[in-house]
Amino acid sequence: MSPKMVLLLVISLLHTYIALASDPDPVQDFCIPNTEFSSTTHQCKNSSFVTVEDFVFFGIKKPAKKIEKSRFLATAVTSSVFPGLNTLGMSFVRADFGPGGVNVPHFHPRATETAFVLEGKIYSGFIDSQNRVFAKVIEKGEVMVFPKGLVHFQMNVGDSQATILGSFNSQNPGLVRIPNTVFGSGIEEELLEKAFGLSSKEIGKLKKRFGPQDLS
Amino acid sequence: MSPKMVLLLVISLLHTYIALASDPDPVQDFCIPNTEFSSTTHQCKNSSFVTVEDFVFFGIKKPAKKIEKSRFLATAVTSSVFPGLNTLGMSFVRADFGPGGVNVPHFHPRATETAFVLEGKIYSGFIDSQNRVFAKVIEKGEVMVFPKGLVHFQMNVGDSQATILGSFNSQNPGLVRIPNTVFGSGIEEELLEKAFGLSSKEIGKLKKRFGPQDLS
Amino acid sequence: MSPKMVLLLVISLLHTYIALASDPDPVQDFCIPNTEFSSTTHQCKNSSFVTVEDFVFFGIKKPAKKIEKSRFLATAVTSSVFPGLNTLGMSFVRADFGPGGVNVPHFHPRATETAFVLEGKIYSGFIDSQNRVFAKVIEKGEVMVFPKGLVHFQMNVGDSQATILGSFNSQNPGLVRIPNTVFGSGIEEELLEKAFGLSSKEIGKLKKRFGPQDLS
Amino acid sequence: MSPKMVLLLVISLLHTYIALASDPDPVQDFCIPNTEFSSTTHQCKNSSFVTVEDFVFFGIKKPAKKIEKSRFLATAVTSSVFPGLNTLGMSFVRADFGPGGVNVPHFHPRATETAFVLEGKIYSGFIDSQNRVFAKVIEKGEVMVFPKGLVHFQMNVGDSQATILGSFNSQNPGLVRIPNTVFGSGIEEELLEKAFGLSSKEIGKLKKRFGPQDLS
Amino acid sequence: MSPKMVLLLVISLLHTYIALASDPDPVQDFCIPNTEFSSTTHQCKNSSFVTVEDFVFFGIKKPAKKIEKSRFLATAVTSSVFPGLNTLGMSFVRADFGPGGVNVPHFHPRATETAFVLEGKIYSGFIDSQNRVFAKVIEKGEVMVFPKGLVHFQMNVGDSQATILGSFNSQNPGLVRIPNTVFGSGIEEELLEKAFGLSSKEIGKLKKRFGPQDLS
Amino acid sequence: MSPKMVLLLVISLLHTYIALASDPDPVQDFCIPNTEFSSTTHQCKNSSFVTVEDFVFFGIKKPAKKIEKSRFLATAVTSSVFPGLNTLGMSFVRADFGPGGVNVPHFHPRATETAFVLEGKIYSGFIDSQNRVFAKVIEKGEVMVFPKGLVHFQMNVGDSQATILGSFNSQNPGLVRIPNTVFGSGIEEELLEKAFGLSSKEIGKLKKRFGPQDLS
Repeated sequence: MSPKMVLLLVISLLHTYIALASDPDPVQDFCIPNTEFSSTTHQCKNSSFVTVEDFVFFGIKKPAKKIEKSRFLATAVTSSVFPGLNTLGMSFVRADFGPGGVNVPHFHPRATETAFVLEGKIYSGFIDSQNRVFAKVIEKGEVMVFPKGLVHFQMNVGDSQATILGSFNSQNPGLVRIPNTVFGSGIEEELLEKAFGLSSKEIGKLKKRFGPQDLS
Repeated sequence: MSPKMVLLLVISLLHTYIALASDPDPVQDFCIPNTEFSSTTHQCKNSSFVTVEDFVFFGIKKPAKKIEKSRFLATAVTSSVFPGLNTLGMSFVRADFGPGGVNVPHFHPRATETAFVLEGKIYSGFIDSQNRVFAKVIEKGEVMVFPKGLVHFQMNVGDSQATILGSFNSQNPGLVRIPNTVFGSGIEEELLEKAFGLSSKEIGKLKKRFGPQDLS
Repeated sequence: MSPKMVLLLVISLLHTYIALASDPDPVQDFCIPNTEFSSTTHQCKNSSFVTVEDFVFFGIKKPAKKIEKSRFLATAVTSSVFPGLNTLGMSFVRADFGPGGVNVPHFHPRATETAFVLEGKIYSGFIDSQNRVFAKVIEKGEVMVFPKGLVHFQMNVGDSQATILGSFNSQNPGLVRIPNTVFGSGIEEELLEKAFGLSSKEIGKLKKRFGPQDLS
Repeated sequence: MSPKMVLLLVISLLHTYIALASDPDPVQDFCIPNTEFSSTTHQCKNSSFVTVEDFVFFGIKKPAKKIEKSRFLATAVTSSVFPGLNTLGMSFVRADFGPGGVNVPHFHPRATETAFVLEGKIYSGFIDSQNRVFAKVIEKGEVMVFPKGLVHFQMNVGDSQATILGSFNSQNPGLVRIPNTVFGSGIEEELLEKAFGLSSKEIGKLKKRFGPQDLS
Repeated sequence: MSPKMVLLLVISLLHTYIALASDPDPVQDFCIPNTEFSSTTHQCKNSSFVTVEDFVFFGIKKPAKKIEKSRFLATAVTSSVFPGLNTLGMSFVRADFGPGGVNVPHFHPRATETAFVLEGKIYSGFIDSQNRVFAKVIEKGEVMVFPKGLVHFQMNVGDSQATILGSFNSQNPGLVRIPNTVFGSGIEEELLEKAFGLSSKEIGKLKKRFGPQDLS
Repeated sequence: MSPKMVLLLVISLLHTYIALASDPDPVQDFCIPNTEFSSTTHQCKNSSFVTVEDFVFFGIKKPAKKIEKSRFLATAVTSSVFPGLNTLGMSFVRADFGPGGVNVPHFHPRATETAFVLEGKIYSGFIDSQNRVFAKVIEKGEVMVFPKGLVHFQMNVGDSQATILGSFNSQNPGLVRIPNTVFGSGIEEELLEKAFGLSSKEIGKLKKRFGPQDLS
């Protein structure tokens, strides 16, 4: 094994470390992951090499791609794409909706979200653990809060494109989409039939729609 | 308004306070909620009135009721039913399954769970946020961990009753059952149709099954 | 003392409680402060009285007032003005700058901030505890992060109005404006003279500018 | 029941609340407990009534009483005696030792301690959970750290009085003295005999020494 | 030094890192320590190599060895033996008692414990920091909670074997056994004599019983 | 690249890791950074190589250098100079003041401070976020608390030397000195002129005084 290989191995091992960090108060001003040797290493860059560019993100000035009718597109900006967020306990997302576009019921296991409407009219809501829905149409400049870990959803009910800026109190809030998680992950069919009271045929249809093949 | 009423009102106001407490380290040995005036007040009982009974729970020695075939029954023991847990950052649950009984896909927004099988054979698993399922049959004396905030599920695949003791690292982990939350809470039908790719008729059937009326 | 007075007193005492809450994970889905008896009580509202309106904020759709040249205006939205944020660990601010408008050097003792430019061109930066400044001009759609507790500042360097949406990972981040804090609070003049190497006359001028009278 | 009584009851109930607060970051600058109505209420005083006196403690300028030979005397300064510490996550203690004076093996369930020697020569140490002792004689101006929750102890090995200033990272670190806890609390004699391998007579002697009667 | 040695060294250095992780919320779904190169490295395994086996523990289905009269045997299951617990803030223990078996007074510096009786009759209790004992006999299916950091103990008072399942809200709660810690660690004899009021002979007997040699 | 170089690189990479640790409860008794290969590596030393020396600090028995009139000198003892503090959530500082010496307005972004006067008479205070100053002269044996993140200051108003021992509830509290931060870091002159209402000439004078050149 060559020293070079050792080095790469080491770096990849180091890479895994950051995964152990959580969202407590930082114990230093900041920690910009080092990407000198690999796009994946995450140790702190020597602060003398840190520049203002490390603290600015340019990637959500416009939608990631053209937003057609019924299209939904989200760009999540966590510490893995905006290293300046590392150890600082925050992240954000830009979500664009074509007319009728839907952000399916989902939740973030590790954060509360405040959603600010940049453009459009959006039917938006969440469900509490007493199974009550809190939903309404919100418009440009209005803000809705989704409590930590609760299922929420959005749909563009306007005639033009809609856009939301969501902010999170974790550098990696996580995302669990209900339809894909439940029907696309491979849970025993019998369990799903019993859980939802659906026939094997109905479950099969849902599994087909949300199964792995659909993720590619 | 009589002083008595004032008092009751005060106590009910106080009651709400505990809701603000979280799961940090306690700053006192313990805090047994006071139930002298009302079953709902939650201020700390004067420690000289605290007895060992406050720290012992007797309510899960057997299933809450007879467990028939395909029946699932859970008794959650949080700080609201076992006051001794208040401020201590833990709680637990006893779950009994008749043969074929199912604990539908659900998650706990505020805790990790360790599930110890007291009896039986249980198909048990969770789905991570990359949409991968981790599931297998576990038996008496085996333990499975469900990471904080991730969707998990269980089904008794044995011929006799099965029982699990689940422990949580929160005094109030919360419980979100996917089928009831998504189809029983009153989310706009159009959004559900688009999210799951189901017809209005199929959604209607699910809403009927999981709607409020079914919760009684 | 009448029961009514007792009640009001009680409520005002209760009010103070929320001050003890911190920004840990909530132990319930949410906690909407009760304002039934007084605009100041902060205990949790009975969840059956909670509505979606409690989770939506409408107050930052436009600047608080007309933004003239060199004018700076900020509307902080903490749990005290948007009760839905209570116990959820987040808050936000809308900041409007007339051309040349300045947000003086300040810091938030209890939160990191992510600043999203809604409009305009803004010279924006922070100073780390090694005394290095990280600053640059950011434009619409760009985001800058200000690490927890560090001094930061902004100035509209464009010809038209500029606006920023700032998000915080605390329900009450706090705000300490350097000029007012140091020169407007009444610190012993001799200490200030020695600390800044300024003459009594210079300090006097600064104290006059930032002293209490200027805050009214 | 008179309104006055209601009021006093309310205040005593309120008093218990603070017990629920923990040592997280504060969400306000400070929270001085209100003692207007009772020496025991702990809600935050209206900040306009807060003065600098609330943030200064004068009670440990000298030993609580004369320190004779072999005497040990400690004055713990937690948020209950120095209200200004409330919600700020710190407290401290002054410990005075006559020649040969001993601070028996004890631990603080909720804090790390840094012990600064103000005067004298002190044999000081702690035991880790691998059962290893770390002990040595420390002198004026030296500092020893006792990790959170570990058993530690001190003895004045000099010829004159010794004094230590201990600081804690909790507003209420708690104190568990091993001899009194184990032999003075009333644990079943049989259990103690087996645990320590001592005779009923030996245990009796220890219980007599450390039993409740000795605490009065 | 050969690359292989470098690698092993690196891995052993990495190993030490996990020690820095605490029990906050995880910032990823899970983190299975990598044991490819060494049983001791603790970096996260690439999630594509993670399987359901990583989340299930089989080692406490029966006592670690035959339980004779007066025998006590505990199997602690922390993240170091059940890697799936890593970063998830929980662990557990199986404790088996022969008739008369004793779990000596001890405490866990980093966790609260909930103890569920799987079998038998157990005298169980804890001592608070006011030196009061809270103890009673608990039986199969009953649960007792031991508050974080407080001294607790157990003794099988039934005629047959007894077993307890303890759960903790830390991945590494720590264990401090009072007799061994105080008498078996090597604290200065004079200090122990003064602290417990025992003769040099009595202390010597205790040191002999609990000294290092007894740990082998 | 030689294995030796790989090793050094690895160690320097490892070094950066500790920066990710925060101030939560430790998950082990302690973690003494390893300095075998480099004064900068920070992984935990194998506990069998840890000695009592690792937990004692000798460096603040006297001022770092002679204290002349108007001189101020502080020795901060964080985990980087006293490794035993690592992961334990505490640190401290010795501050010496010649007659008239000043500790300029500053704050610690990550900790509350308790300041104990070892010697002398010190005018000491802090400013809250409502812009109110809380200041007074404190003397030997008196203690003042500075809430987390708030600006505070001190000046020796006695005729002889004064000394303070400050304790913090973070292993790395951070230090932001207002004059140097605002005027010595290179913030745009125009912004400073507007923020403080000072002329270009006045700002220039301040920048000259506090600019980088003055830090050497």
